[in-house]
Amino acid sequence: MNHHVRLARRPVGKLTTTDLELVEVPVPEPGPGEVLIRNTWLSIDPSIRIRLAETTPDGYLPPLRPGDELSGLALGRVIESRSPDFAVGDLVSHTLGYREYALVGTRVQTIGGYGAPARIDAGELPPQWFLGPLGSAGLTAYVGLFEILAVAPGDTLWVSSAAGAVGALAAQLAHIRGATVIGSVGSPAKVAFLRDELGIPAFDYRDGALPESLAALAPGGIDAYFDNVGGDHLTAALDALRPAGRIALCGAVSGYDGAAPAGPPNLFTMVSKGLRMRGFRAGSFTHLEEPMRREVAGYLADGRLAYRESVFHGIAEAPAALVALLSGATVGKTLCRLAS
Amino acid sequence: MNHHVRLARRPVGKLTTTDLELVEVPVPEPGPGEVLIRNTWLSIDPSIRIRLAETTPDGYLPPLRPGDELSGLALGRVIESRSPDFAVGDLVSHTLGYREYALVGTRVQTIGGYGAPARIDAGELPPQWFLGPLGSAGLTAYVGLFEILAVAPGDTLWVSSAAGAVGALAAQLAHIRGATVIGSVGSPAKVAFLRDELGIPAFDYRDGALPESLAALAPGGIDAYFDNVGGDHLTAALDALRPAGRIALCGAVSGYDGAAPAGPPNLFTMVSKGLRMRGFRAGSFTHLEEPMRREVAGYLADGRLAYRESVFHGIAEAPAALVALLSGATVGKTLCRLAS
Repeated sequence: MNHHVRLARRPVGKLTTTDLELVEVPVPEPGPGEVLIRNTWLSIDPSIRIRLAETTPDGYLPPLRPGDELSGLALGRVIESRSPDFAVGDLVSHTLGYREYALVGTRVQTIGGYGAPARIDAGELPPQWFLGPLGSAGLTAYVGLFEILAVAPGDTLWVSSAAGAVGALAAQLAHIRGATVIGSVGSPAKVAFLRDELGIPAFDYRDGALPESLAALAPGGIDAYFDNVGGDHLTAALDALRPAGRIALCGAVSGYDGAAPAGPPNLFTMVSKGLRMRGFRAGSFTHLEEPMRREVAGYLADGRLAYRESVFHGIAEAPAALVALLSGATVGKTLCRLAS
Repeated sequence: MNHHVRLARRPVGKLTTTDLELVEVPVPEPGPGEVLIRNTWLSIDPSIRIRLAETTPDGYLPPLRPGDELSGLALGRVIESRSPDFAVGDLVSHTLGYREYALVGTRVQTIGGYGAPARIDAGELPPQWFLGPLGSAGLTAYVGLFEILAVAPGDTLWVSSAAGAVGALAAQLAHIRGATVIGSVGSPAKVAFLRDELGIPAFDYRDGALPESLAALAPGGIDAYFDNVGGDHLTAALDALRPAGRIALCGAVSGYDGAAPAGPPNLFTMVSKGLRMRGFRAGSFTHLEEPMRREVAGYLADGRLAYRESVFHGIAEAPAALVALLSGATVGKTLCRLAS
């Protein structure tokens, strides 16, 4: 039998595991052009929370309805193939996560342009890295830093949610490339992780006023802001940015799990200081996946880049993994391991 | 005697003429390096309203205090010179408006980098054009369109406050360069001005819901938005922009004359649609003044560009001119004429 995770009911405020349900269904049979995949690793990403609301932002994927299966990036082995593109045994990344067996078909599903079914040659590397630093998290960090912000040596960069999958990579990549980086996180343990394991000065945004905490680590202001949070973090960045500063809008997790905050009241600083802000999704930059992988794999190999995972085990844990991620209880990349 | 306009008291809500006062003072004597200028034309700009509040946005000029003289772009004749740079009779643009006689000194004052004292050779052209289409309004429109938005043929552009000094120029310049342009304005008379005199389809934002009015003129959405208004206009633009759309933040007049509106609640569309937003001030782009003047002067000469002025007469009318401008009662460039 196959198990998958469905939306049981729309969450009211913060997501709880009772908003999701595990359903047992038969393992599907591949039709012509289709492959059956045994998922081995599920990527647990905060952005799925956007689709659990009544409506989604313009340009985003449609909302899920109660009864719909969740989807998300995943990695698995082909166990049956009726497609010329994939053979039994292939390791494949795709978007049909939150289930044990996935039927990947001729109609390609992506998440904002990312995650089209692709064979992965992991070699000696841990395969789940292709959901993390060598996959969507790596590409998101790389694009945000180097395509959107054009971070260069001499820049002072603030990365929010800096102990998360994307944030921890972005903070380190910018640091390796010569920028001065500061991070914000949501707990003292994460401050210690950033400072002691990654070598990045960080502050806990729950600990005092954001503008003062930021100013303590960046007394001269910042040149660039990598935003994973939105809300009061974005407001603080607009105030702290120096003239001609840049903002990359990657995510806005402060607004996912409950009421979305109002927009920043100080947006006029964009005029007064000549600021730039650009939103992006990794799926628009898949042509950069190869250069990103070369660079990031090199830093992982030579030990300059530290990579942390929070791993849950078994499909029954996937709802708890998502709830934990959204509540800030995980560090680094959050994954759910289903099989080896 | 000299007369100048001072802030009498901080406006509460909308500016009224009683918040300003006209003061009679002696005509100043130029010291070494200084020139005495008889102002002939005052530029009346909405942005001075920002400085009448208790605080100003980070990066902006400081607030004026009650008793302080207003300042603003102006044009005048040198009547006494103790500077090697200017001779009696020179026509000079500078930033010491809102007064009849200005003492331009060695300490150069600018407004966001714009308006350093400069000799103007108006030739046969109306001199006040150098406060309008060949001056700050022209440069602001030109920079916003071609540097910030990179408007090109095929783009659908929305310009807000499109009957204003900057908006009417921006709408026409983009139209001449081959873009599809729609404008929004604040009265039926301004809709008629746009449509009948400038050939630009327009709607009255007070007439029905903004998203529907916009969709009626741009059913397929927009590629670029030239924002002079902020608030609900910016929110509507974020919803109407197509993927990879661009926003130029030029001004936010909806927030000047009273309480500033909250930021847009739908800023996450910047992520979902990969949008770019950039604020700017003309003073950072003075190197483009010459190419702007060549292009705009050509369009004015061959009649492709229509230019409308709302002219008030005499320094005593300057407060009323500013109040009229902020309340939306003027069309095109608002000026106060002091002398010929």
